[in-house]
Amino acid sequence: MTSQTDAQTGEGAASGPRAELDFAKGGGLVTAIAQDDATGDILMVAFMNEQSFDLTVETGEVHYWSRSRSKLWYKGEESGNTQRVKSMYIDCDGDVVLLKVEQKGGAACHTGRRSCFFRKLEGGRYEVVGGEPLFDPKEVYGR
Amino acid sequence: MTSQTDAQTGEGAASGPRAELDFAKGGGLVTAIAQDDATGDILMVAFMNEQSFDLTVETGEVHYWSRSRSKLWYKGEESGNTQRVKSMYIDCDGDVVLLKVEQKGGAACHTGRRSCFFRKLEGGRYEVVGGEPLFDPKEVYGR
Repeated sequence: MTSQTDAQTGEGAASGPRAELDFAKGGGLVTAIAQDDATGDILMVAFMNEQSFDLTVETGEVHYWSRSRSKLWYKGEESGNTQRVKSMYIDCDGDVVLLKVEQKGGAACHTGRRSCFFRKLEGGRYEVVGGEPLFDPKEVYGR
Repeated sequence: MTSQTDAQTGEGAASGPRAELDFAKGGGLVTAIAQDDATGDILMVAFMNEQSFDLTVETGEVHYWSRSRSKLWYKGEESGNTQRVKSMYIDCDGDVVLLKVEQKGGAACHTGRRSCFFRKLEGGRYEVVGGEPLFDPKEVYGR
């Protein structure tokens, strides 16, 4: 999305936008929020390293960094529930990326639910909200 | 908001809802997202420790943990721009709290802007969006 090139690293493309982010503060990661572009609902929160940020900008498909698996995570690579970027924002101190996305398959959460935020605090207890899961995790992930 | 009491710690009120959160994973902190309850806009992202989560549940006023100042942070204590909780959610693995809030004074960001996410990535560069600042930080914070 840019023709700028970083002479020192030889990297192209996203070196411009990435430079506004503070990866150092979070040990190489920034927080990434996926928000449904159509409804405004928050779908999930994860992390990005420099590579996943660059790939997201370049491809328009959301890539995170999986802390539990310590690997690049192309969202939806297993489930098919990819996220198409509609727009991207960064916060005032550059340690959070906001992604407004089109959620393929309708479900962002590994539980099969549309949003990871399906537990609402009500009267001191959590109630499950947001409807039934849209897929069976065992069928999709085999676990 | 609850009558449950934790017999071991002697703490009341929020010990129930807090128990569903995984503070250990983030070194004692969970990520907290403030979303405008009326518009769905993401206002800011910060952190909460156990105390700030409990105080938020108990008072209905958002309290964070300031990493830069290493102290409890009653949002709006200096600016007057407090956040009133309309509803609270937690994510599937319990390390993020979503707060739907009424933002007093209209501005959540320390820059005086309504949202911290005022930089939008457009064609490889960031454009400032979301309108003019609603207050002058120098006047409000004296710095």
